Amino acid sequence: MIRNLYYEEQALMILNQNCLPEELVYERCERPEEVVAAIKGLKVRGAPLIGVTAAFGLAMAFSGYSGTGEARDVYFSRMKELFAATRPTAVNLFWALERMERVYRENHHLSPEELARRLCQEAQNLYKEDIRVNEAIGEQGQELLGEGSRVMTICNAGALATCGYGTALGVIRSAARRNKIEMVWACETRPVLQGSRLTVWELWQDKIPVTLLTDNMAGYTMSLGKVDAVITGADRIATNGDTANKIGTYSLAVLAKYHGIPFYVAAPLSTFDWNIKQGGEIPIEERSAEEVRTIKGSCLTVPVVDVFNPAFDITPEHLITAIICEKGIIRPPFGAAIKIWGREGE
Amino acid sequence: MIRNLYYEEQALMILNQNCLPEELVYERCERPEEVVAAIKGLKVRGAPLIGVTAAFGLAMAFSGYSGTGEARDVYFSRMKELFAATRPTAVNLFWALERMERVYRENHHLSPEELARRLCQEAQNLYKEDIRVNEAIGEQGQELLGEGSRVMTICNAGALATCGYGTALGVIRSAARRNKIEMVWACETRPVLQGSRLTVWELWQDKIPVTLLTDNMAGYTMSLGKVDAVITGADRIATNGDTANKIGTYSLAVLAKYHGIPFYVAAPLSTFDWNIKQGGEIPIEERSAEEVRTIKGSCLTVPVVDVFNPAFDITPEHLITAIICEKGIIRPPFGAAIKIWGREGE
Repeated sequence: MIRNLYYEEQALMILNQNCLPEELVYERCERPEEVVAAIKGLKVRGAPLIGVTAAFGLAMAFSGYSGTGEARDVYFSRMKELFAATRPTAVNLFWALERMERVYRENHHLSPEELARRLCQEAQNLYKEDIRVNEAIGEQGQELLGEGSRVMTICNAGALATCGYGTALGVIRSAARRNKIEMVWACETRPVLQGSRLTVWELWQDKIPVTLLTDNMAGYTMSLGKVDAVITGADRIATNGDTANKIGTYSLAVLAKYHGIPFYVAAPLSTFDWNIKQGGEIPIEERSAEEVRTIKGSCLTVPVVDVFNPAFDITPEHLITAIICEKGIIRPPFGAAIKIWGREGE
Repeated sequence: MIRNLYYEEQALMILNQNCLPEELVYERCERPEEVVAAIKGLKVRGAPLIGVTAAFGLAMAFSGYSGTGEARDVYFSRMKELFAATRPTAVNLFWALERMERVYRENHHLSPEELARRLCQEAQNLYKEDIRVNEAIGEQGQELLGEGSRVMTICNAGALATCGYGTALGVIRSAARRNKIEMVWACETRPVLQGSRLTVWELWQDKIPVTLLTDNMAGYTMSLGKVDAVITGADRIATNGDTANKIGTYSLAVLAKYHGIPFYVAAPLSTFDWNIKQGGEIPIEERSAEEVRTIKGSCLTVPVVDVFNPAFDITPEHLITAIICEKGIIRPPFGAAIKIWGREGE
């Protein structure tokens, strides 16, 4: 299995996903600011992976740091803010930073070296937990798929979006191990093409049958009776089940509803935002116009045309057939089940 | 106004739309086979323009041709077949070739030179008619738009898809002249990017406000209440109103229905196929996998991944709010009105 990131000799090695699938390039980040830039620049992406990467970045900030007391608290807050400001939508980022802060506070009395070790250990824990969680999601979710399933997905909610195995692609992997997958329809996912660049590459390596589509072909493919289910990941889920995910997810959910095709969201508990009631409260990141105007540096349009480039959209809970989590599968109305999970996690 | 094509000195000059918007390149076609290649290779595209281009190509085949009698009939059939085989979906192609055949038959008794002149004249007639028809469509259709309209469109159903003025963009132009257009949302229209390359360029030149979107942003933009109408062109309309148009049109129609947004099709009568009852009878062209795998020669994915690349889809009549034609606007059920138009055209 390809590792998206690993920590060695006080440096975080990050697989630069912007170079995939042509090149397998690891970038060595030795300073927190380099990790921040890697997250902002989409070298690492995917809600769960962003969280763990930020945790490693925060741990790195304390490697060799000798401050103590109030100065150290200020430094921690500043570093945490630095990572919290990288991207606004995926809540896993804030969740991972909270986990790190808890370890920081619990080990406040320790020496700088020992504190740094504990922070690094927590980042490693988050990494390992994420893989276990995804394997559990896969096992839960594969139950929803029958033999000969043709599954549509968008973006990359795979091993590359997580520390391994994936969420939506984790479900597909677990189903494929039981020979249930006849075809994965991968929407290319403009503007950043996570579908064509990452999902196709991942599934191709795992020898899971995959067919690439442009995003505007999804509805027609459904109308031909060629899609049995849609499975996507999530960047943030409100307590009523409303789900923020990669732009285009909402369109797929509407199209799936229209065609009577089940629409599943696969995500770990760390993707739930226990503080918000509904999707309207989720901040939607807007990214640069250049992502839409260009591909690989090549301009596709009038270079100064206005662009709308929301990186995510909100799928309301009533369009979601089920949410697949490491703890199980919930169906609408989601609110009650999500509340129970939230209470258990406290 | 930029001319998409013009005939001079026995050659057809074709604006190579694959080079837009970076370069304005006219290609000189001196042989019918060059015109055929230009149509197949999307140098000229757009249902109405394909028809007129083929008509000029057919006329060109008779310029300097000295055959007579049965040999000439065989030659005509062969040339007609050559153009009929370029692209399968847009019916305007076959309609224009039928118009040319009628002129051929009616002037069968004339000298080779005079026959060639008549064929060339008919192609010129088709060219001029198309512009007049589009202006009429624009005038009819603008009635449907109120002040401050924000209109979404896909592909390019503009001046570049026709001999001038455009169908869907003709409606937008006519509305813009009355200051009714607040914004045009142009879907980029993967894989060939007619939206970003052509529609944006056309509207930009005409100073009509336009914002570029990737195709998967359409649903979210609608959900934000930012779209008042969707207007598209058409490649073939069945006698019940089912409409073949650029891939992605069907998804937009479903999304528009879901959001209660009117969905309009703007097309000349030459886009109606009087011989078919419903959309299932329309052949859908599938194009090469390379269109999806690459952009501007740059590979976006695993180079050998399977691809589904339908160039068109079918929007069923029940998703269409109205069809805008040079003769007027019809609303569902479309069958009766279309039958009357068909009878009038006989």
